[in-house]
Amino acid sequence: MKEVFYKYIQELQDTITSKIEEIDGKTTFKEDIWKRPEGGGGRTRVIENGAVFEKGGVNISAVHGALPKAMQHYFKVGDLDFFACGLSLVLHPKNPFVPTVHANWRYFEMYDKNGSVVDSWFGGGQDLTPYYLFEEDAKHFHQICKNACDAHHPEFYTTYKKKCDEYFYNTHREEARGIGGLFFDYCKASNEMSMQDWYSFVSDVGNSFLEAYIPIVTRRKDSSYTKKQRNWQEIRRGRYVEFNLVHDKGTLFGLRTNGRIESILMSLPPHVQWQYDHHPEPDSEEEKLVKVLKKSVEWL
Amino acid sequence: MKEVFYKYIQELQDTITSKIEEIDGKTTFKEDIWKRPEGGGGRTRVIENGAVFEKGGVNISAVHGALPKAMQHYFKVGDLDFFACGLSLVLHPKNPFVPTVHANWRYFEMYDKNGSVVDSWFGGGQDLTPYYLFEEDAKHFHQICKNACDAHHPEFYTTYKKKCDEYFYNTHREEARGIGGLFFDYCKASNEMSMQDWYSFVSDVGNSFLEAYIPIVTRRKDSSYTKKQRNWQEIRRGRYVEFNLVHDKGTLFGLRTNGRIESILMSLPPHVQWQYDHHPEPDSEEEKLVKVLKKSVEWL
Repeated sequence: MKEVFYKYIQELQDTITSKIEEIDGKTTFKEDIWKRPEGGGGRTRVIENGAVFEKGGVNISAVHGALPKAMQHYFKVGDLDFFACGLSLVLHPKNPFVPTVHANWRYFEMYDKNGSVVDSWFGGGQDLTPYYLFEEDAKHFHQICKNACDAHHPEFYTTYKKKCDEYFYNTHREEARGIGGLFFDYCKASNEMSMQDWYSFVSDVGNSFLEAYIPIVTRRKDSSYTKKQRNWQEIRRGRYVEFNLVHDKGTLFGLRTNGRIESILMSLPPHVQWQYDHHPEPDSEEEKLVKVLKKSVEWL
Repeated sequence: MKEVFYKYIQELQDTITSKIEEIDGKTTFKEDIWKRPEGGGGRTRVIENGAVFEKGGVNISAVHGALPKAMQHYFKVGDLDFFACGLSLVLHPKNPFVPTVHANWRYFEMYDKNGSVVDSWFGGGQDLTPYYLFEEDAKHFHQICKNACDAHHPEFYTTYKKKCDEYFYNTHREEARGIGGLFFDYCKASNEMSMQDWYSFVSDVGNSFLEAYIPIVTRRKDSSYTKKQRNWQEIRRGRYVEFNLVHDKGTLFGLRTNGRIESILMSLPPHVQWQYDHHPEPDSEEEKLVKVLKKSVEWL
C-alpha cells in the first residue's frame, strides 16, 4: 500500500501544481527536494507572488525510521519503526474574494522490530477559509466533498464534515477557522472497509480537490477589491496563523519532531495584520462572515 | 504585598504610557477597563498607528479566585485560590532600526481554603528584539539591566540574563527571539532575600525600563529606511509571532485559561510577513543580526 499511495500523491502533486500554474498564468512553483537525516525526504513546491496566488505550497513527503519519542508518546506505543507519506497543500490567493484552501492526504504505517506492520491508517481532508462569504461557493465546495464521500459510505460526509468543523476551530476566539469541508483520521481496516477501500476513498477525495476549489477561484479571481477589503483579508489571515501555530496538531508535531521547518510553515500567509480588538462594522459583509464562523452550518 | 505591588504597577503604567506618548508625539494610548467574570480585571492601554510606535500595549491586570484547573496542573497543587497581578508591555516601533521591546513584572499568591497564603513569588523581566544590530544599543540595554541587578545581588545579572537567553528562544528556528535582557521567575522568600527585598529588586527593574529603552528609541527613530529594510522587519516580526504563539508560556496559558484574548494578543505585531525559506544576503546587515541570534552573546 505504501508504494501505491506514494505513487498516487506524486502524480496528484503534478496534477495540482500544473492546474494551479495554469490558473495563475504569471508564475510557477519552485521545487525543493529535501532529505530527512533520519530517513526519507520530500518534494516541496512553493508558489509566491503570482497573479492569483500570493503564496502557497503543494508538498509531498515520505519519511521513515525509528518512531520519534514524541510520537511514541502521542500514539501511546513503544519503540516502533514507522513510515509516513502524504501530500499537504495550502494556497493563499491575493484577491480577498478568493478563499484560502487547505488539503492533506496521508498514510501511516508502524512496524515492530521484525519489520511486521503492526498498524496502518489513512487520514486527511480539505477545507475552505473564505474572507468574504459567498453561499454558492460554500455549497459548491461542500457538494463536491459530499459527492466524493457518498460513493463510499452514506455517512462519511456527515461524519467527516462534523470532524472538520470541530478540528479547525480557534477555541480562544470561539470561532471556526473557515467554513470547513472534510477531516478524517485513523481510517483503519474494518469489517466494512478494507485498506484498499480506504485507499479508494482517500484518492477519490484527493481527485475531487481541483473540482472543489478551481471553479471558485475562476469565479472570484478577477473581482475588484478595495484597500479596506484587503486589510480585512490580512486581519483574517492572522486568525489562520493563530490556528496553525496554537492549535494545529500537524504543525506543532512537525516543529517538535525536527520536521523541515520551511515546508511546515509554508502554510503561513504572506502578509498578515493584527489590529487591537478589531470588530467588523454591524451588518457589513465582514460581519456576515464572522457570524457564520461562530456556528456550524449545514451547507447542503 | 499585593496592595503595595498593585499600586506600584498602576503608577508604573502611568509613567511608561506618559513617556511613550511624549516620544511618539502623534497619538495616545486608548484605554480599555475590563473585568474578569471569575474575579478581578485589568486596565489595557493600547497605542496604534503612532509616528514612532506602530502598535503596542502597556497593560496591567489583577485577577483572583479559584485557581483554574490548568494552573493547578501546571503548578502541581490542589484546589487553591490565587491572586495574580502584573504589568505587561510590548512596543512595536514603525522604524526597522528601533527595536521591539517586551517587559513584564508580576506577583503571584496562592491561598488555602482558610485564606492563608501558602505560596507567593515575583517574576518578570525585560528584553529587546532588534531588526538591525547596533552593538551600542545592545550594550546600553544590558548595562541598565545590570545596574538594576547589581544593586541587589552580584549574580542576578548573570543568572537572569542567561535565563532570558534560554527562555526567549525559538527552538524550531534554532535562534533567539532577540538579544535578551533579564528573565526571572519564582522569586520567593529565602535566607538571602525577603519578599520585601524581592519587591525592591523587581520595582528597581521596572523603574529601569524607560532608561534602558528610551535612549535607543530617541537615537534611531528618525533614521531613514528602505522598503527592503521594512520587509526585513516584517519577516522578523513573523519570528516574534512564532515565539509568542508556539513557545511563550504566558500567552498559551492565557489562551487556555479564559484570559482576555485581546489583551494577551496585543503583543502581536501590526504588519507581518512570511516568505518561504527566506535567507538574508551573505555579509549583509540582516545576516549580521541572524548570526548574533544563533549564539548567546555577553554584551558587557
